[in-house]
Amino acid sequence: MALENDATAQNHLDMMNARKATSIDVLNVKHLVYNGGEEWQRKEKLIRTISEDPVFDKSKRDWMTRTEKFTRGLRMINRIHELEQSLGWSKQDTAMAFSLLDEPLPISLHTTAFEPVFLLQASQKLLDKYADLIAARGILGCYLQTELGHGSNVSALETTATYIPETKEFDIHSPTLTSSKWWIGALGKTATHGVVQAKLLLPGGEDKGPHLFFVQLRSLETHQLLPGIIAGDIGPKSFNGFAATDNGFARFEHVRIPKEQMLSKFAQVTDAGEYIQPPHAKLSYGGMLYIRSGMVTTAGWAIAKAAVVSIRYAIVRRQGGKGPDGLEKQVISYPSLHVRLLPILARAYVFISLGRALSQSFQVMAQRLSGGDASLLAELHAMTSGLKVLCTTTSVQDIEDARRSMGGHGYSAFSGVGRIYADLIPSVTYEGENFVLDQQAVRAALKAFHGLFGSEGKTRPSSETVAKLTASSYYLRFLCSPRNEPPILKDTDNSDSSWNKPETLILLLEWRAALLVHEIAQAAHDPDLTIYQRVSKGSTEAFVGRRVGEMINGLRTNLGLKANDVAVLSRLYLLYLQTTVESALADLLSFGLLRIENPSRVGASRDPTRGLRMAVARNCLGLVPEAIGLTDALGFSDWELDSALGVHDGNVYQALWDKARSEPLNDKEVPDAYEESIKPMLARGRMIAERKRRPKL
Amino acid sequence: MALENDATAQNHLDMMNARKATSIDVLNVKHLVYNGGEEWQRKEKLIRTISEDPVFDKSKRDWMTRTEKFTRGLRMINRIHELEQSLGWSKQDTAMAFSLLDEPLPISLHTTAFEPVFLLQASQKLLDKYADLIAARGILGCYLQTELGHGSNVSALETTATYIPETKEFDIHSPTLTSSKWWIGALGKTATHGVVQAKLLLPGGEDKGPHLFFVQLRSLETHQLLPGIIAGDIGPKSFNGFAATDNGFARFEHVRIPKEQMLSKFAQVTDAGEYIQPPHAKLSYGGMLYIRSGMVTTAGWAIAKAAVVSIRYAIVRRQGGKGPDGLEKQVISYPSLHVRLLPILARAYVFISLGRALSQSFQVMAQRLSGGDASLLAELHAMTSGLKVLCTTTSVQDIEDARRSMGGHGYSAFSGVGRIYADLIPSVTYEGENFVLDQQAVRAALKAFHGLFGSEGKTRPSSETVAKLTASSYYLRFLCSPRNEPPILKDTDNSDSSWNKPETLILLLEWRAALLVHEIAQAAHDPDLTIYQRVSKGSTEAFVGRRVGEMINGLRTNLGLKANDVAVLSRLYLLYLQTTVESALADLLSFGLLRIENPSRVGASRDPTRGLRMAVARNCLGLVPEAIGLTDALGFSDWELDSALGVHDGNVYQALWDKARSEPLNDKEVPDAYEESIKPMLARGRMIAERKRRPKL
Repeated sequence: MALENDATAQNHLDMMNARKATSIDVLNVKHLVYNGGEEWQRKEKLIRTISEDPVFDKSKRDWMTRTEKFTRGLRMINRIHELEQSLGWSKQDTAMAFSLLDEPLPISLHTTAFEPVFLLQASQKLLDKYADLIAARGILGCYLQTELGHGSNVSALETTATYIPETKEFDIHSPTLTSSKWWIGALGKTATHGVVQAKLLLPGGEDKGPHLFFVQLRSLETHQLLPGIIAGDIGPKSFNGFAATDNGFARFEHVRIPKEQMLSKFAQVTDAGEYIQPPHAKLSYGGMLYIRSGMVTTAGWAIAKAAVVSIRYAIVRRQGGKGPDGLEKQVISYPSLHVRLLPILARAYVFISLGRALSQSFQVMAQRLSGGDASLLAELHAMTSGLKVLCTTTSVQDIEDARRSMGGHGYSAFSGVGRIYADLIPSVTYEGENFVLDQQAVRAALKAFHGLFGSEGKTRPSSETVAKLTASSYYLRFLCSPRNEPPILKDTDNSDSSWNKPETLILLLEWRAALLVHEIAQAAHDPDLTIYQRVSKGSTEAFVGRRVGEMINGLRTNLGLKANDVAVLSRLYLLYLQTTVESALADLLSFGLLRIENPSRVGASRDPTRGLRMAVARNCLGLVPEAIGLTDALGFSDWELDSALGVHDGNVYQALWDKARSEPLNDKEVPDAYEESIKPMLARGRMIAERKRRPKL
Repeated sequence: MALENDATAQNHLDMMNARKATSIDVLNVKHLVYNGGEEWQRKEKLIRTISEDPVFDKSKRDWMTRTEKFTRGLRMINRIHELEQSLGWSKQDTAMAFSLLDEPLPISLHTTAFEPVFLLQASQKLLDKYADLIAARGILGCYLQTELGHGSNVSALETTATYIPETKEFDIHSPTLTSSKWWIGALGKTATHGVVQAKLLLPGGEDKGPHLFFVQLRSLETHQLLPGIIAGDIGPKSFNGFAATDNGFARFEHVRIPKEQMLSKFAQVTDAGEYIQPPHAKLSYGGMLYIRSGMVTTAGWAIAKAAVVSIRYAIVRRQGGKGPDGLEKQVISYPSLHVRLLPILARAYVFISLGRALSQSFQVMAQRLSGGDASLLAELHAMTSGLKVLCTTTSVQDIEDARRSMGGHGYSAFSGVGRIYADLIPSVTYEGENFVLDQQAVRAALKAFHGLFGSEGKTRPSSETVAKLTASSYYLRFLCSPRNEPPILKDTDNSDSSWNKPETLILLLEWRAALLVHEIAQAAHDPDLTIYQRVSKGSTEAFVGRRVGEMINGLRTNLGLKANDVAVLSRLYLLYLQTTVESALADLLSFGLLRIENPSRVGASRDPTRGLRMAVARNCLGLVPEAIGLTDALGFSDWELDSALGVHDGNVYQALWDKARSEPLNDKEVPDAYEESIKPMLARGRMIAERKRRPKL
């Protein structure tokens, strides 16, 4: 039967028209997103190589078993390393190539956890022996911290490392079921070595708490587990996420390692078994901050993918009442839809930009740290706790909202968006569980508060102290003088409205943060239960808001952008601020921050929030024609998105149809279940009906 | 290596102690949940039969391919039918047995969509021929509405049914790619017949819009597709949801069916091709309301499962600071955790109870409808639109929150909670997309508003009109007299506080609904973009709030409960009201409804919402010891939950360990990927490191 490809023609036309209507210069904006042309060209080059290589083909993966996905994952890792060698890729090339694969793979545990910890904390002797091998992946590592019964409370870990002076060895042991290492990425089947967190026990039984030990897990000859080690894969994850990663378990039965294999840069044990104190315990936090900074970038790009797919689909999908062209309307034209999608796009832009800035801050800090200067550590820690919570929580919510915005087809695996959620969702838990991190963010905010106002909160801070406020607590300046007053808001229909002024919106976010921190400082002995989340979110959003203000200002001095690009991007960043304020309304109203000079009046409207909500609506409406340009500028290839609904040419129905044909259930017209189950069921049913029909004798 | 089962002993002890501490009579409450002992006993009997039958074994399903899951699903359907026959199950037994299987199966499309539509709309002749067969499943059906390019706008469906007077046949045809039927459950591989929504075209080309046609799809001899029909499975769904259901596509190439196969109870075509108008078009809505009523119950039980698993885990999981027993604290003791879990439990109880009441209302309406009285239809429609949105959105959020509350292990597929989300999440889209339904809920609310105040909204309603307000818009009474005033709130630390009074909380929810509807009536020509959601949610929560008040009153007259059971359940229902009001704070503050006589003062607290938030915290804390009793009373067996973290005996670590051993990746100590990928990668790495080490010549 021939298919009439009418829809494809219309899809294509809709997408083309949308691209014609967009006013921004896509390449200019792309260079902004990729921080210049060089990075973008690197990506283009890599995508060309990878997407054409059959090893990276994605067409079968939706139907693979976990074992097949794992096998394919390792094939991809090996292939990237082959390409690195044969094409002479730089370190950056390889790192980017891995980041372009849209699946979490075991190698990432080697490069983001095992290697940095080893490099930071191993002795020179150990470094000399292993650093080159690790860099070249002549051994593959993992980082064994979490245990079956123990997570974020590291001090409760049960695995022991007992020092044996007689042989100058440590005895690594898992004394209980709950001490089994668990969730360890790459441990299940891949890693040859690991860094093990274990409780250091000295002769006489003295417990020195958790320390790190370098342990070989598998034979380099046969890949079999070494004696005394039981290890394996912990099984599938929710939503089929992380399928290609072998999160594993391990139990150690008195495994002996030489004393040199304790990572002893910061703490040592003498041959006789005496403990030498670490000089700078905090130095070991560096790695954690590095990972958290990276998470903002990851979140930004994940939101970006979901935004691109859902916006492209909303442009070609037509539904509901007919428009002037006699066709059903493009769904992106519905305010109820575009008001959901454009803020998601805005957050993608903000997080990508913020993530880059944060990674730069991290580099500065790391450099100073290596020179022994830990002064930036506390500030970066204060920033990243709340940011990690905000960016992970927001990103998974945005991705899921984008998926739902696509209605029925959004639930098809071929939409490609469910997969992003499945792999990103554990980020709300790992690297600091979000509810636990909220409390750290609050602690940092309170520390800044008491730094200003003293332990009783009553000292009047000097102007010098106020001037020294860092970016993470800059908002506290408002509390420093009773003369400070929250802004009076103008609520008009034009650009003069406070709801369209970035600076006013930022001030509102900062005032809210200041009053929330003031509130928790008063109620610290008897807090209500949502205040930790509200303070963490409030202070982080004030910080991000101020950064977004800087991004807007930065646009004006960016020589790569035309005036119109600047105008459109400014409106996108403004939308971020508007929707952030909108989501903070309960706080703003609670603290009397909605001081409106001339509240919106429509009929007998009694709703003081109406003006802001209308401003969001108008801004979104204005951005609709730019949506396709702004999504194209994110620079994703079809291979990266792997989404039938997000295809660049807009031919979504053809793509869904083509994909459905590869469903293995369709290999046989009559499924195997027919003979076994359907046929007997139908026969039984006919018999019962027949019996009922026949008059009883 | 022997495992020391220390953790298991502690887990078991923790669970036992929790059960000792609970004060409610679990059986009494169970009977409340199951609406009496009879239903509970029916369930116990069925669970015993099913859970011991190997056909219903769940231990392998986490690793099955879609085809295997589909095959297993049909095996289960067939087995239920066998058991029905061999054990003499009643219709209710069979229906309950299916509801106990925690996987959406193709048979449900037969029983909840195909059969009811057929019975309601088929002619007597068609009923005589097929009703018995359908009831006995001598044929298996599906309901073909959605098309690749068309969803909720039924009038835009493209499939045509052209009447051919010469042969007295309809010609069913898919003229375009986008007209392909898509997403149709059980169509892919299972159904033998279907009810097809198609545009009725009369001779001369007159288009009568969508009508229903009964079409045989597959041969009853061979199960092969009949000539002119292309059909198959549309592929996997997001998160691996609905894996055992063959959502399918179908294209019709001029398929002829006899004229009798139009479902002609409400609209007919004469032999000559003349159209006879349907008498009561609305009567066909009945089926939709039936499904929506059922969704409240489904949502309630799904939340219940997630609540049971997460609360049981929170009881045995220990983490963080040490308690008086020298062990880490049970995580349920952390306010930041139990304040998230107990409201979820409360919503499970409320939705289960509400769903039952709604199904009863539906029965009453259906009975009157069959007698030609459609008076209750509008009211049930008004109720169910908003309720469908509320219960689906809330349930998936609650399930995901419960999963996240379990931290790392919550992401294991063995937690069993991800699976619930994966299968329930499409409910936000099907049976009316939630954002579309919000608008219907608003329309119903505005209709009630204008019924009171006239089309201009200015008429003063008579006391008679006010007295006639139905349950779905009862809250509008406050707008009827300027003398009505919102309650003044007492904010104290004791039971006298307004935050502990169900009636006051319900009044607040009703006032908020009334003012929101008033607001949208004023701004209908220029609405802000979130107001539809706010009005829909507000009016629905007012309705539900009032029902929860009735539930609390009902407890007091329930002879099956002891005074203590009543007290505990009342606090649980109160928690529902408190958290609902808490989530409505932005609206309450906007409309000046937080009129507190004596605001909470702690230090210099400026937060008027503090009193409510503290009341929630206190109520949660008080309910912690009852949590295990209230979850046990939901009456789930381990087989139903299929969760390593929700096992009845609390032995979660042993259960995780046992489950991990069945991961197929663990079948081989050295995975196949070793020879293919890991070994060459390690060798290459060693070579590179070696080369670097060797001094260059």
